Amino acid sequence: MHIEIVCIGSELLLGFVNTNGAYISEKIATIGLKVDREISVGDEFNELKNVLEESLKRSNVVITTGGLGPTFDDFTREVVSKITNKKLVLDKEQLKVLNDFFVKRNYKMSKSNEKQAFILDGAEVIQNSIGTAPGQILEVEDKYLILLPGPPRELKPMLENTVMPFLKERFEKGILKVKILHTTGMPESTVDEKIRKIIDTEMELEGGEISFSILAKHTGVDVKMLVSGKDEMLIDEAIQKLKKEFYDVLGDIIYSEDNQTLESVVGELLLKKRKTLSVAESCTGGLIAHRITNVAGSSLYFKQGIVSYSEMSKKKILNVKEDTLNKFGAVSEQVAIEMAEGVKNGMETDYGISTTGIAGPKASSTGKPVGLAYIALVSNNKKIVKQFNFTGLRTEIKDKIATAALDILRRNII
Amino acid sequence: MHIEIVCIGSELLLGFVNTNGAYISEKIATIGLKVDREISVGDEFNELKNVLEESLKRSNVVITTGGLGPTFDDFTREVVSKITNKKLVLDKEQLKVLNDFFVKRNYKMSKSNEKQAFILDGAEVIQNSIGTAPGQILEVEDKYLILLPGPPRELKPMLENTVMPFLKERFEKGILKVKILHTTGMPESTVDEKIRKIIDTEMELEGGEISFSILAKHTGVDVKMLVSGKDEMLIDEAIQKLKKEFYDVLGDIIYSEDNQTLESVVGELLLKKRKTLSVAESCTGGLIAHRITNVAGSSLYFKQGIVSYSEMSKKKILNVKEDTLNKFGAVSEQVAIEMAEGVKNGMETDYGISTTGIAGPKASSTGKPVGLAYIALVSNNKKIVKQFNFTGLRTEIKDKIATAALDILRRNII
Repeated sequence: MHIEIVCIGSELLLGFVNTNGAYISEKIATIGLKVDREISVGDEFNELKNVLEESLKRSNVVITTGGLGPTFDDFTREVVSKITNKKLVLDKEQLKVLNDFFVKRNYKMSKSNEKQAFILDGAEVIQNSIGTAPGQILEVEDKYLILLPGPPRELKPMLENTVMPFLKERFEKGILKVKILHTTGMPESTVDEKIRKIIDTEMELEGGEISFSILAKHTGVDVKMLVSGKDEMLIDEAIQKLKKEFYDVLGDIIYSEDNQTLESVVGELLLKKRKTLSVAESCTGGLIAHRITNVAGSSLYFKQGIVSYSEMSKKKILNVKEDTLNKFGAVSEQVAIEMAEGVKNGMETDYGISTTGIAGPKASSTGKPVGLAYIALVSNNKKIVKQFNFTGLRTEIKDKIATAALDILRRNII
Repeated sequence: MHIEIVCIGSELLLGFVNTNGAYISEKIATIGLKVDREISVGDEFNELKNVLEESLKRSNVVITTGGLGPTFDDFTREVVSKITNKKLVLDKEQLKVLNDFFVKRNYKMSKSNEKQAFILDGAEVIQNSIGTAPGQILEVEDKYLILLPGPPRELKPMLENTVMPFLKERFEKGILKVKILHTTGMPESTVDEKIRKIIDTEMELEGGEISFSILAKHTGVDVKMLVSGKDEMLIDEAIQKLKKEFYDVLGDIIYSEDNQTLESVVGELLLKKRKTLSVAESCTGGLIAHRITNVAGSSLYFKQGIVSYSEMSKKKILNVKEDTLNKFGAVSEQVAIEMAEGVKNGMETDYGISTTGIAGPKASSTGKPVGLAYIALVSNNKKIVKQFNFTGLRTEIKDKIATAALDILRRNII
């Protein structure tokens, strides 16, 4: 059983980072199959033709992404038609789907979109619930060519709802489960040292395999376990056992598992304890509020964010004292505390958090260095303020401060 | 002249997003060369052997990344030795470099690191200033195999300091310049129709080539020109001429060029006109403030953002009238206007913008649909409010509303 992924688009060979291959290969791994190769190729008719011909020779399943749009440089359909000798046929039903798509959005469908209703003779259509490019599954002499659009938000539901069940039914070979533990606040090398003993102790799994990886991002370190086999119960047991060992050595620096974000963990904790939150941000400039409000239902606990980018705002809306600003400067412990108190009291929430710091790229006029930040947390019975010295680009420093603030909140609600 | 990139590592086919290919191909484009394919392959000896043999057949230069580490699953060196019949020879100088690396860090070098000092017979060593894996450039019958390590922070200086000068000296073909025009507010197919005539009119460029691509993102459409040739002046002229034609048909839906973001364009306009801004966000939840404050120096024109996630906040901080909220609901034209007025007047800024809408995933309790949004802009002599109906995930809808708000501001400052 051989599978290849072919990602199509000139931008992929001109600096555009492609995430589709990673996404598809990870999904395919969950049913015990492996992708042999992933190939990126530009919007060049002959080069694409060569790539697809070779891939079809080597593999049982070839999945393509991209080149299904309405524009002149989209010709995946045409290339596949050429190499398989299957005609492109206008699918009237699909044309109606396309028309409806535009009517619903009050747009006039342009002539160029019509070509997206052309389907390879005999292919199964994969409906695209988000965009205008339908996918196609074409059988060619016992092999399958699966065409998907390039935009990840269109591709993902099509892969999950149609392609994965299709592959599972025909080729499923076993199970692979991935468990990710997200940590923040500890450097990669320290995380590595702490978990080294667990990783170096080879655990046996009958008919299966266990592997690990560590991934350092600028806001934290992820620890990943990959456990494969045929018996789901054995796999789950192994994951539970390993997870316990990781929690034992890493403790509460683990803030979540798998796809859960720090902000959604914080949201769940606030909901569970029936507490409310407001935020006063200076250096993070709205990023904390943005992350919190990315969580559906956050209006149940999040009441207000103040992005305080001027002294007037700090004084007028957050009630920071003129005296405190003059004496300690806007980037100080004292101002951080008053900002958190101001936003908490103004909105009568249970928690108030604040950030003030130097996001860069320039140091402050008073000589405070880039990356210096104070984060304060105020509740009915607690006042905390912490100093940090982060490094990185302006946007990275904003990320790091926002993550640290959310993590301080998490540790204090628990 | 054909170039391929081969990225090696099982993690690349298990969900790990690979950025090396994008990075290398972008660098190579700057000297007028094009990468034909990028292939990702796992740590499987025979599969890698097949891939490299095929790539060497097709291409003049093959650049590999990964598989140069000290562990059992690193065997790029061995595979290349096998397919080229070049022996791996212990390079004593390189062994000393490795030893020094560990001494300097107070580590004992492990036996397994020794294999990193083995160099393909006749290959040129590329020093690695950050890690333990040296790179290698091997000439094989007028073709070049260039081996680089996988970690981006190790690969980047090696590519820039050694590989790029090497390629430039031998193959520089001219110059390639890329010009990107960013648009928002018009669907991909309409942009395509409008620019079709320009694209279909073949423009001649002596000794060069012109190509185009369109890339649709959920917040807008990018139009890209790639102009290559030998004469920089001719290339620049061609770009200027084409740019003018694109501006003629697309007009002010083009908000910026190349790497400039919408928020930095807005920032420049505010600075130039010496105007200040405050923002009141409901459904965008801080994203507009976050984007504005990603721009260095934004405190010069951005004074305050209010993320108003409760009625109390709207009434107390933004002075939205109880009556307006009761009569029209929080998601309404009227509330949008009062929010923008409230934040503008409170901070005495020249502009106030506001957003109120349903980010989803659930419709409002009063039945207003997901994606419905009102954006208001208030200045000293203008009040504008616009209704939008966006689609997508919660985070995409936030993105789209924030982009539309920033674009309304841009059009009104111009």
